[in-house]
Amino acid sequence: MNGSPSFQDWMGLIQQRTEQALEALLPGADLAPRRLHQAMRYAVLGGGKRVRPLLAQAAGELAGAPAERLDRVSCAVELIHAYSLVHDDMPCMDNDVLRRGKPTVHVEYDEATALLVGDALQTLAFQALADAPVADDAATQLKMVCMLATASGSRGMAGGQAIDLASVGLQLSREELEFMHIHKTGALIRASVLLGAHAGRALDEADMQRLDHYAKVVGLLFQVVDDILDAEADTATLGKTAGKDADNDKPTYVSLLGLSEARRLAEDMLADARATLQPFGDAAGRLESLADYIVHRAF
Amino acid sequence: MNGSPSFQDWMGLIQQRTEQALEALLPGADLAPRRLHQAMRYAVLGGGKRVRPLLAQAAGELAGAPAERLDRVSCAVELIHAYSLVHDDMPCMDNDVLRRGKPTVHVEYDEATALLVGDALQTLAFQALADAPVADDAATQLKMVCMLATASGSRGMAGGQAIDLASVGLQLSREELEFMHIHKTGALIRASVLLGAHAGRALDEADMQRLDHYAKVVGLLFQVVDDILDAEADTATLGKTAGKDADNDKPTYVSLLGLSEARRLAEDMLADARATLQPFGDAAGRLESLADYIVHRAF
Repeated sequence: MNGSPSFQDWMGLIQQRTEQALEALLPGADLAPRRLHQAMRYAVLGGGKRVRPLLAQAAGELAGAPAERLDRVSCAVELIHAYSLVHDDMPCMDNDVLRRGKPTVHVEYDEATALLVGDALQTLAFQALADAPVADDAATQLKMVCMLATASGSRGMAGGQAIDLASVGLQLSREELEFMHIHKTGALIRASVLLGAHAGRALDEADMQRLDHYAKVVGLLFQVVDDILDAEADTATLGKTAGKDADNDKPTYVSLLGLSEARRLAEDMLADARATLQPFGDAAGRLESLADYIVHRAF
Repeated sequence: MNGSPSFQDWMGLIQQRTEQALEALLPGADLAPRRLHQAMRYAVLGGGKRVRPLLAQAAGELAGAPAERLDRVSCAVELIHAYSLVHDDMPCMDNDVLRRGKPTVHVEYDEATALLVGDALQTLAFQALADAPVADDAATQLKMVCMLATASGSRGMAGGQAIDLASVGLQLSREELEFMHIHKTGALIRASVLLGAHAGRALDEADMQRLDHYAKVVGLLFQVVDDILDAEADTATLGKTAGKDADNDKPTYVSLLGLSEARRLAEDMLADARATLQPFGDAAGRLESLADYIVHRAF
């Protein structure tokens, strides 16, 4: 990649682009209803690693997608992610008070506002994907709206949350744990990669299947590493309450496999992701670096 | 309308079609995660007057839209409505225990499930509108996705809820009350009419503006009548906790104008809606009957 920015610089660039795109998309804090709009901006802006946008942009670059389309896609997946965090932090769910180093929305504002913020952020995600061109044609764009819905709904992310809730205090098998995470975290990460790719030129079936396999592996990998991070990190580093999975008696890869086995699993999955990208050559450099980054932020 | 069913029969027919379409669209109660899917079905099926679907179908018939498209549109608007009720009933919002004569979702299940049910129903609404043809072309369909998002989000229904929350205990002017209701109830009712119309042949600009005016009037009319109903009805008739607006110290048309003046306002708005439909002739018969029905269910 001669002349192109280093991975670190590229990450910074995309994070900045995403922040600007979200800032422009979110209703202004001076628009009525102001408190709701202020709280929506509080929930979304100024934080987060923007992993889903990074994946969408990397996959989109592989498919030659224009940057402004990828910014839209980035907003859509990040808004779904942000809405899920706001609702997940509420007292009736995880009852978390700290997120990205700041008080959670229901603490900073109130519960009713947090509920509406999550609701309105979800709506805005679909609006982001529908109200300006993000694909070569309207039919592909409609398909992208469906992909986002499938990844977010009861057979995707929201379903994963429900399984998570139902499994507190239970001893899950590895298959059951995987089923939960494929939905809870994996579905939206997978969608981020595929939506990014759909924003560009049509890829052939084999390439799309490769990307899809990569996306599935990375989606699960992300959760394995999250479990490792949660078991290891202290609150200051993580910017959220650490060790909460064990406190909440939630099943994790670490509680199931132990720490060193969980790390080995992460390395194996990383190797799988890398091998899957091989046929793309240099064009998949960003996707490969991202998989590496997702694992090695942890240890 | 020779040979066509009476208004009462037509209403029953559309309500039945809508129920069947929702039943087919909602994931089965035996699909994982089962408790979530059961609760989603509990929240949506077997109740409700289906006012938004009735409006969508009536406007769609005016534009010659195929029935199966209108069933999709009906599902989308009813799912948005259903999600808003589930979240609105939660303890941090209205804390209501009774809805359509049954325990509310958070009472029958639990708060976390109610939160996820609302989230997943919203997602399903967008899926319903995107994953099968509901318009003559994909570009129109994308526009319909945007219309639903605009009507539902922070500048529509969710924004109206936020204004409602912020206005408890305040003495609003009639303009402020109207602003709240245009968002909270009006936006989705308006969208129901317009989405129904967009599912058919393209109407000319003047006709679309007429329909839009009708939709705005009916959207507000619905709330005026709801306020009258709430002030008058007893819990048994209403199937939800009555008199709760006064209990919650919420501003209403009745608290602002008094009961008889609120009734007069409703009759004036009904006359406006009827006059607006005049140029359509018999083709707007269902829309006219619906406006009439919305008012006279009350008194």
